[in-house]
Amino acid sequence: MSEQIAHKLINNVASIVDEMIDGYIAAYGDYVDRLPGRRVVVRFTPKEPGKVGLVIGNGSGHEPIAVGWVGRGMLDANALGEVFAAPTPDLILDAIRAADRGAGVLLLISQHAGDVLSGEMAVELARAEGLQVEPLLMFDDIASAPKGHEEERRGAPGTTFIYKVVGAGAEEGTSLMTLKALGERVRDNTRTLSAAVAPGISPLTGKPMFTLPDDEIFLGMGVHGEPGFRRLPVAPADEVVAAMMDGILADLPFTAGDEVLVFVNGAGGTTLMELLIIHRAVDAVLKEHGIRPYRPLVGEYVTTQEMAGFSISLCRADEEIKRLWDAPVAVPFYHR
Amino acid sequence: MSEQIAHKLINNVASIVDEMIDGYIAAYGDYVDRLPGRRVVVRFTPKEPGKVGLVIGNGSGHEPIAVGWVGRGMLDANALGEVFAAPTPDLILDAIRAADRGAGVLLLISQHAGDVLSGEMAVELARAEGLQVEPLLMFDDIASAPKGHEEERRGAPGTTFIYKVVGAGAEEGTSLMTLKALGERVRDNTRTLSAAVAPGISPLTGKPMFTLPDDEIFLGMGVHGEPGFRRLPVAPADEVVAAMMDGILADLPFTAGDEVLVFVNGAGGTTLMELLIIHRAVDAVLKEHGIRPYRPLVGEYVTTQEMAGFSISLCRADEEIKRLWDAPVAVPFYHR
Repeated sequence: MSEQIAHKLINNVASIVDEMIDGYIAAYGDYVDRLPGRRVVVRFTPKEPGKVGLVIGNGSGHEPIAVGWVGRGMLDANALGEVFAAPTPDLILDAIRAADRGAGVLLLISQHAGDVLSGEMAVELARAEGLQVEPLLMFDDIASAPKGHEEERRGAPGTTFIYKVVGAGAEEGTSLMTLKALGERVRDNTRTLSAAVAPGISPLTGKPMFTLPDDEIFLGMGVHGEPGFRRLPVAPADEVVAAMMDGILADLPFTAGDEVLVFVNGAGGTTLMELLIIHRAVDAVLKEHGIRPYRPLVGEYVTTQEMAGFSISLCRADEEIKRLWDAPVAVPFYHR
Repeated sequence: MSEQIAHKLINNVASIVDEMIDGYIAAYGDYVDRLPGRRVVVRFTPKEPGKVGLVIGNGSGHEPIAVGWVGRGMLDANALGEVFAAPTPDLILDAIRAADRGAGVLLLISQHAGDVLSGEMAVELARAEGLQVEPLLMFDDIASAPKGHEEERRGAPGTTFIYKVVGAGAEEGTSLMTLKALGERVRDNTRTLSAAVAPGISPLTGKPMFTLPDDEIFLGMGVHGEPGFRRLPVAPADEVVAAMMDGILADLPFTAGDEVLVFVNGAGGTTLMELLIIHRAVDAVLKEHGIRPYRPLVGEYVTTQEMAGFSISLCRADEEIKRLWDAPVAVPFYHR
C-alpha cells in the first residue's frame, strides 16, 4: 500500500526517484537514457571520444536541475540521490565511468556538506581505477558566508552559469584542466541571492519545509530551506529587488562598464508573471549602475518543490563566457 | 502607493501586465518586441512576406502560454488581456495587423466566452480593413461538455498541439485555408482532461481562486478554476491517471494502433518530479492499450497561477502532424 501525501501526486515515497526517472526516460528517451537499474541518467547519444565528460551527483527534488540538463552542450551524466540527499559515492562513480570518453571527467560539486563528501569520495574511487577526474566546487550564495569567505559559501542557482558555459566548452573539446579553470572563472565572477515568500512541501513528510510569517520575506534562503540571513516585510517587487541588488552588486563588486549574464530563477511556486516583473526591476537597477545585461535567463530551473520565491544571479562575463553562454544546447529542460 | 498582495511578488495590480511585458522584452529582446504602448508582443524578426501570420489574443495569468510562444515556428503576435480577461477587439486587431505579411492571418481563439467575443469582433474589424483573416476555434476539454457536443467544449492545454503544429506549418509557407484545415484536424483529434489538487491565488484579489477539501482532487477543472465535473478522493498518482485516461481514451476514442502526441502539463504549483511520475503512468496506460506515444511533452506550459494540478492531453497524429510537431521552433518558453 502506498503512503499518500496531501497535495503530492506520487505513488510512494520510497519509489519517488525511480518513478521520476522512468517517467523522464519514457517522455524524453530521444535525449536521455538510464543506466540499467541505477539512478544515473546519461545522454542517449554519448559525446564523441576524446572529449571531457561533465558529471554531477545531486539530491532530487530540485527539478529540472540537474537531471533535466543531461544532453548535448551540458551534462553527460547525472547521479540522483534521494529527495534533498546526496547520492552515494558509488553512484557518482557509475556516472563518471559512463561519462568518460578518454579525455577525463569534470565532476561538478555544488557546495553542500553531503554533496562534497560523496563527490570527493567518488573522485578517489575513480582515480583508484585509473580514471582522470577533477572536481569543481561550485559556490555562489552570498547569504551563506561573508565576503572574504567565498569558498565557504553554498551552491545556489548561479551554478547554472557553470553548467551551461563549461558544458559548451566540453562539447567543443576543451581539455580537462582548461575546463576546470574556466569553471572556476565563471564561479569566481558569479554571485547569487535568494528570497523566499512561502515554503515548499516536503514530499517525504507532506509538511511545509519551514515556517514564515505571511507578511515577511526571507532573504538568503538556501535551496533546501536553509535559514535566510535577513527578513524583510512584504513589499513591492521593485523594493525587494533593490534591496537584494544592493547586496549582490557590492559583493563582487560589479561596477559600471561590466557586462553580466543575468539569471532570475523561480523556486517552484512563483509564477512566470512575477519572475518577469522581477526581471524588469533587476534590469532597471543594472542600467542605473551602468552594467549591461547580456541575454538574460528567466524561469523555473532550480526549484525547492513548490516553494514560492526566487533568486537573482549575476555573472561578470568576458567574451569567451558570452560565446559559450550562446553556444548550442539540446537538453530536455534548459532553453534560452 | 502600491497595493500589496500576500505572496505575490508584484508592484501594483493595475500595472501587472505592462510590467510583465516590459520585463519579458528586457530579458528576451533577441526573440520578441512590443508594439509601442500596446499590450501586443510580436516577433523580433518578422516572418518572411508571403507567409501566413499566426495570432492569438488571450487573458494574462497563464504564462508561459501564449506570450512565451511568440517567435519562429509558433506565434507571430500575441495580444494580452488583463489577468484572466480577454483582450479588447482593437488590441487583437493590432496584433493581426502586425502579423500580416500579405498571405492572411489565422487567429487562434481558445473557446472561452470573452475570447470568442473579442476574437470574432477583431475578425470583423480586420476584414473591414481588407485584411484576410480566418478564425480557428480551439476546444479540447472533455469535462466541459459531453461527447457529441465537442464544439461546446472549452479550450484547455491540448490547444498546445495546435500552436506547435500550425505554427510550423505557417513557417513552411502553407496557405491560409490549408492551415485552418490542419488546425481543425489537430483539434478534432485532441482530447484533454485536467485535475486540480489545490487552488492558485488570484493576483487581483490575493485570495485562493476556489476551495477544495484537502483530501479531494477535482477532475475537469478549467484553466480559470471553472468547476470540475467529478471529485476523487486523494489517491496514488497511478490511480488518478488511470481514472483520467479511461475518460480520455473513450472520448475520441483512441484505439490500439493509434500513434499519439502526449502532453502532461503542470498547472503551476505541481513539481516536475510529480509531472514525470504522472507521465510514467500515462505511458503505461497507453502501452496497455496498444497506443504508441510519440515524443511526449512534459512541463509547466499552461498555468493558472500557482494552482497545483495537471492535465493530460492526447492528439492522434498522422505523418504530417508528427513532422510538424518535430519541426524547428525558437521561442523563449517552449522547448521539446
